[in-house]
Amino acid sequence: MTDRVAILAHGKFPDSAKTAVGILRYGDREVVGVLDRDRPADRVREVLPDVQDAPIHPDMDSLLADVGEGGVDQLIVGIAPIGGGFDDSWRPDVRAALAAGCDVVAGLHYFLAEDEEFARLADEHGCELHDVRRPPEDLTVSEGVAGDVDAEVVLTVGTDCSVGKMTASQELVRTARDRGYDAAMVPTGQTGIMIEGWGVAVDRVVSDFTAGAVERMVLDAAEEHDYLVVEGQGAIVHPAYSAVTLGILHGAMPDSLVLCHAAGREAVHGYEEFPLPDPGEYVDLYESVAAPVRETTVAAGALNTSGIDDGEAAREAVAAFGDAIDAPAADPVRFGADEPSGTGDVVEAVFP
Amino acid sequence: MTDRVAILAHGKFPDSAKTAVGILRYGDREVVGVLDRDRPADRVREVLPDVQDAPIHPDMDSLLADVGEGGVDQLIVGIAPIGGGFDDSWRPDVRAALAAGCDVVAGLHYFLAEDEEFARLADEHGCELHDVRRPPEDLTVSEGVAGDVDAEVVLTVGTDCSVGKMTASQELVRTARDRGYDAAMVPTGQTGIMIEGWGVAVDRVVSDFTAGAVERMVLDAAEEHDYLVVEGQGAIVHPAYSAVTLGILHGAMPDSLVLCHAAGREAVHGYEEFPLPDPGEYVDLYESVAAPVRETTVAAGALNTSGIDDGEAAREAVAAFGDAIDAPAADPVRFGADEPSGTGDVVEAVFP
Repeated sequence: MTDRVAILAHGKFPDSAKTAVGILRYGDREVVGVLDRDRPADRVREVLPDVQDAPIHPDMDSLLADVGEGGVDQLIVGIAPIGGGFDDSWRPDVRAALAAGCDVVAGLHYFLAEDEEFARLADEHGCELHDVRRPPEDLTVSEGVAGDVDAEVVLTVGTDCSVGKMTASQELVRTARDRGYDAAMVPTGQTGIMIEGWGVAVDRVVSDFTAGAVERMVLDAAEEHDYLVVEGQGAIVHPAYSAVTLGILHGAMPDSLVLCHAAGREAVHGYEEFPLPDPGEYVDLYESVAAPVRETTVAAGALNTSGIDDGEAAREAVAAFGDAIDAPAADPVRFGADEPSGTGDVVEAVFP
Repeated sequence: MTDRVAILAHGKFPDSAKTAVGILRYGDREVVGVLDRDRPADRVREVLPDVQDAPIHPDMDSLLADVGEGGVDQLIVGIAPIGGGFDDSWRPDVRAALAAGCDVVAGLHYFLAEDEEFARLADEHGCELHDVRRPPEDLTVSEGVAGDVDAEVVLTVGTDCSVGKMTASQELVRTARDRGYDAAMVPTGQTGIMIEGWGVAVDRVVSDFTAGAVERMVLDAAEEHDYLVVEGQGAIVHPAYSAVTLGILHGAMPDSLVLCHAAGREAVHGYEEFPLPDPGEYVDLYESVAAPVRETTVAAGALNTSGIDDGEAAREAVAAFGDAIDAPAADPVRFGADEPSGTGDVVEAVFP
């Protein structure tokens, strides 16, 4: 891993740039700048006070002028559009980064290394293209053995995409570690992989190997740690992504689940004609479809209240979510994973 | 499509060779021989009386000696091991076929066209390698619109792998056509694709595109036909393959489901430590996990009674299965999809 990174998040920072925000919040590298041509502010802290600060630039040329020759090691594409394509309006930034000898990292379905221009530029300037969504070559089908590992396994599941499963996973691991647990995250998506430095982008593997890819990661991580938080993806009733969700659920064979939801979300993001079921219905769905492979229960909930301005209203929303799923709930970012909101202790609920 | 085919089914014919048997039963090409080195009989009809007959040979050389120069156009790899690998003991047969100018077709995860020796031999002898499991390059995520097509869509779902979903789909389409319906199958697996001559092997697509691949096929087929039977895969609670199952369910957005089961199957095939839930529980699982994307019901059942010798006992098993799922049931191969077994008419139930 290189040390100084720039993050591309054009038009999306901060609200729709979960990879960018995840790296700012949880990554251990210095972020020397964020690229957003719609520039919501001059610095990150003006729009996101609770993460690592950095200047916001309209393009890579501006950032390079600011940090100087050799002042940045890596450009990370920090936004992931639906479908995972490469937006050609980002091309000048990637080009400028490579010309400046900067590696480029992306988690898109479109592989930068297969782009002729980028491959040639990387070659010319001696830098690397990392496509973190490219799966290992040797994946295979699940054997149904993840349930046998000598570790407590928790899986974050969601009511939808982009409700905070990666964030909840990170917060749970951090809080558990603070309490002395030997805990680790099993990353399954591009942001988690970029933060943790390992993992498989499960949505990019061959469909038949979805559960198998997760099983292998759980087996590997259980060799090293006693408590695992597997990062879930999508939602069990998502019109497009449910396959990935269920493959992770059956592949991980978790001991318990944390249901993640975004307060106020009423329909599937980007598929507005599909209303979300009630939280309690999700509990039934996840538990009943898991049971024949692995008996598991929704032991806790994580509510993303970033859409609620008022702190008291946010606390009430967390408490109501806990009631709806009949389990302890928290907003791990806003209030911490260790502060029970009237319904119990989330970390204790999943790591008894 | 070529006309005269040989089918490789070493050690598996007929009971564990579903692709081979499917082509013999439903394909419209002449099968000039089956390869099984454990040779259960001299001819197909001795072990499978109700399908196209053909001699059984121990290897490709024996078959070629029998049919003579130019007597076979295509060798089909008609068995699909768990994991979809290429068994190196089949290499001499594929080599002999290519040397004789015969195309080779396979539905494995391992692509013959990427095997150096096969690619070279095919090139030298002017023949082709078809990997039907290789997905189209331009797949994408589902838009959640298959429910809007102007066709009645039925999906065959299963209690497990290898319970007869492909066969039930074929039989339903045949019987519906006999009754005058403009019906067609939407093939999602290698056998169906080999029989129908089109389709996408959904288990081989990028996990994120599972539902999208099926959606596209349903949209295309609905342009041509009024009644569609989508071939399901795996099972909703299969430890390894459930991702594919759910992607098809949400991608196809079917109007109704046909639950397929093999009489006497009590545990997941190849995963014997996982007992199968009761048929009625499958009905609840499929319907409840489908509902938020598409309200649908299990409208009929297909029971594979090939493991029951006694005809009367088989009829009783079909009736009991119908009772268990509270819908009309049939064994479409043994008794026909149009013969209700005391519980109603299967075709009428799914195509009202």
